[in-house]
Amino acid sequence: MMMQTELERKRKQLQPTHVLTMEDWGVTEIHNLLDRAEILSRSSKPFPAQRLFAVNLFFEPSTRTKISFEAAERNLGLDVLPFEADTSSVKKGETLYDTVKTLESIGANVVVIRHSKERYFDELIDKINIPIINGGDGCGHHPTQSFLDLLTIKQEFGTFQGLNIVIAGDIFHSRVARSNLEVLERLGAHVFVSGPKEWMSKELMHRYVSMDEAVEKADVMMMLRIQHERHAVKMVAGPADYHELYGLTAKREKKMKQNSIIMHPAPINRDVEIADELVECARSRIFKQMKNGVFVRMALLSHVLDHNRGGILQ
Amino acid sequence: MMMQTELERKRKQLQPTHVLTMEDWGVTEIHNLLDRAEILSRSSKPFPAQRLFAVNLFFEPSTRTKISFEAAERNLGLDVLPFEADTSSVKKGETLYDTVKTLESIGANVVVIRHSKERYFDELIDKINIPIINGGDGCGHHPTQSFLDLLTIKQEFGTFQGLNIVIAGDIFHSRVARSNLEVLERLGAHVFVSGPKEWMSKELMHRYVSMDEAVEKADVMMMLRIQHERHAVKMVAGPADYHELYGLTAKREKKMKQNSIIMHPAPINRDVEIADELVECARSRIFKQMKNGVFVRMALLSHVLDHNRGGILQ
Amino acid sequence: MMMQTELERKRKQLQPTHVLTMEDWGVTEIHNLLDRAEILSRSSKPFPAQRLFAVNLFFEPSTRTKISFEAAERNLGLDVLPFEADTSSVKKGETLYDTVKTLESIGANVVVIRHSKERYFDELIDKINIPIINGGDGCGHHPTQSFLDLLTIKQEFGTFQGLNIVIAGDIFHSRVARSNLEVLERLGAHVFVSGPKEWMSKELMHRYVSMDEAVEKADVMMMLRIQHERHAVKMVAGPADYHELYGLTAKREKKMKQNSIIMHPAPINRDVEIADELVECARSRIFKQMKNGVFVRMALLSHVLDHNRGGILQ
Repeated sequence: MMMQTELERKRKQLQPTHVLTMEDWGVTEIHNLLDRAEILSRSSKPFPAQRLFAVNLFFEPSTRTKISFEAAERNLGLDVLPFEADTSSVKKGETLYDTVKTLESIGANVVVIRHSKERYFDELIDKINIPIINGGDGCGHHPTQSFLDLLTIKQEFGTFQGLNIVIAGDIFHSRVARSNLEVLERLGAHVFVSGPKEWMSKELMHRYVSMDEAVEKADVMMMLRIQHERHAVKMVAGPADYHELYGLTAKREKKMKQNSIIMHPAPINRDVEIADELVECARSRIFKQMKNGVFVRMALLSHVLDHNRGGILQ
Repeated sequence: MMMQTELERKRKQLQPTHVLTMEDWGVTEIHNLLDRAEILSRSSKPFPAQRLFAVNLFFEPSTRTKISFEAAERNLGLDVLPFEADTSSVKKGETLYDTVKTLESIGANVVVIRHSKERYFDELIDKINIPIINGGDGCGHHPTQSFLDLLTIKQEFGTFQGLNIVIAGDIFHSRVARSNLEVLERLGAHVFVSGPKEWMSKELMHRYVSMDEAVEKADVMMMLRIQHERHAVKMVAGPADYHELYGLTAKREKKMKQNSIIMHPAPINRDVEIADELVECARSRIFKQMKNGVFVRMALLSHVLDHNRGGILQ
Repeated sequence: MMMQTELERKRKQLQPTHVLTMEDWGVTEIHNLLDRAEILSRSSKPFPAQRLFAVNLFFEPSTRTKISFEAAERNLGLDVLPFEADTSSVKKGETLYDTVKTLESIGANVVVIRHSKERYFDELIDKINIPIINGGDGCGHHPTQSFLDLLTIKQEFGTFQGLNIVIAGDIFHSRVARSNLEVLERLGAHVFVSGPKEWMSKELMHRYVSMDEAVEKADVMMMLRIQHERHAVKMVAGPADYHELYGLTAKREKKMKQNSIIMHPAPINRDVEIADELVECARSRIFKQMKNGVFVRMALLSHVLDHNRGGILQ
């Protein structure tokens, strides 16, 4: 450790444009800097540009959900602090709690979390003083996706009462399916399931309809994405066979009721879950769902921030 | 799936600061939230902070071009939505079209795309309703790089008419070279090529000059970067030999005409394409080119956004 | 290279909403665009939204330090240009100097750099015209961490004169320890070290105290993180043994002096350096340190920017 005299330091510091080592700083300059920081820490309104901070903690990749939150946050005037889970302290063995507490200390006003662990939030909610929005927990919940599905249906039909809704596809691995099934029933809809029976739990079998029955019955066909990346077991059928047996084919679409709609959370496996030509057909609300995603996330963000900060938004 | 009574939900919801699962939300609260989202979706001016959104889709790494676009976008007051191609849905098999359509749905007003596939944009332009700016397509085009080169030359000479311009180096793998050669001719310049003959196509050979001829003839020496990462075939010469045979050496620079300039798109392989000591010499416009990159990107962004939105910028 | 006639170009350009190839641009349109860029480059105040740009160049991962800088920068109203070292030109062999010079050319007003090379900044400071803030150089320095430690101590005791400060743990690999030891002495404190003797250099041994002596003597216990990722040599003791021998256990905490405090730079290895239950105990200033990190970084950023730009902040 090379020591410098106070004189050498003084000389250097005539132009102290950089911050490189502590050795470059003289005692007086250090105290001046600390005073400046102390004033910043005490001032009730020190920051010319201070806005509310959001942080999106995505421990699982999801461009779509993440960028939708980013758009929602910016539309509300929030400032988004970038967090890269890949290079994060979590890799140095830090707990999720310590990471979130750190973000709270740094000044985050709301955190959005996606994490592979189901109900990761149970260990956080009593100890964290800022709102958490669940962006997906393993195979558990994905409430903002559910809300955007609900908004899309409500915009179309004005109500959920008495609607026939078929959720079709990889129900076992789908967060969306589990959240939606429960909430749609509660809101008054009749919910059915379709797709490969190996992908259904026993308790769902009384709701089972074949795809050919489904298209004739449904007001809403909610197609799910096949989550290749979560399948430990191989698919029995190839993509073309799957499409024929369980997919929404062009032929099946023709049998759908007037005014019935098609939904899909995306990303889409074209010609597997749904025929390529149906993705943007008149019945499809797929890109409408994405638009709605931004609106429900804005609504949820302003909801939790209003509640915690006394109505500062809107 | 654990069910909760409406009463349990009500109790919990006295302090609903988090958004965790759908089960936590009562029927009334769900409808309230959907109404809030619906108002947001209908309002013509709902967002206190709404600005225009740009997204930079870089499927190939390029810090330099990307950060130049980021600076240009922010200088124009655009809001930049971060997109990480590495962790994106594209890895889940999503098509480029679906990705771009998603960004359009989420509210992007302009997308900048770099992609390894030549003319990737042919499949997009008739179906996407927001402007695309090509940030480089494989070994194809890189128009914003060409524009910054053009600006740098025009600033220097006021015209392109009659200028002798030598493009030297790895022309075969260079997007820059292909775009520049065509457009510089069209603007009235005489374009020559130099460098290893193995890296020239036959149709270019009538433009060939040796490096020693080049430096005596050129008003502009446009050096190209050796793209080691694209060379399937090994370089015949080592770096030092390459420098001596095909590089802009200190000795060759002395033979250049008065007022002639040196350009390079960077990143630079020092002492390979160009001598280390020439990178910031009086003739060099290399860092000027980088500055100009921000200005042409601002000009192009405001050009496409003006056109699509009726002159909202400037 | 397909050539187009000027007429074909004109026809296409009736709706030139995209920027795809140079071939699409006619000669007149090119000159118009260049004029637009030239105006932008000359104008003294061309940009509606122009703010000051900060860039955080983190070649080593550090979510905590990076996000603290991000928050500080945004609190001051700086605009942060994202830089991903992983996908950067540095991987194409670019020198650190060329990368930083590029950022300067693009318009960065300050750069924060973390790099594995000790004193990486020596090759930069005379040649770069924007301030550099060192976010950590290998096992060398980490001045912003030192400043936040100093602020935390000064807030507590009002002075450094005569304080007993024990730095405990992995001193050999700790940037924090080396910077702090030197500067705390200079400010008037008595500094002691503790932890495994294999992790101390000989010149430090006259400061050595055991952990049991340390807790009775210290006004400040500065615990260090065991940097597993830097240890070439294996730890002799397992985590539980380490905790018992060298950690701040619940039992040891009870012997600490009244008003003495515990500090840790985080991320924390709970029950190794420090007992889980002590992380948020009454003596702990660990999350206070994180808060202070934002304030000292704001103070340092405004310090270097004031100096270079003539007091534009505050």
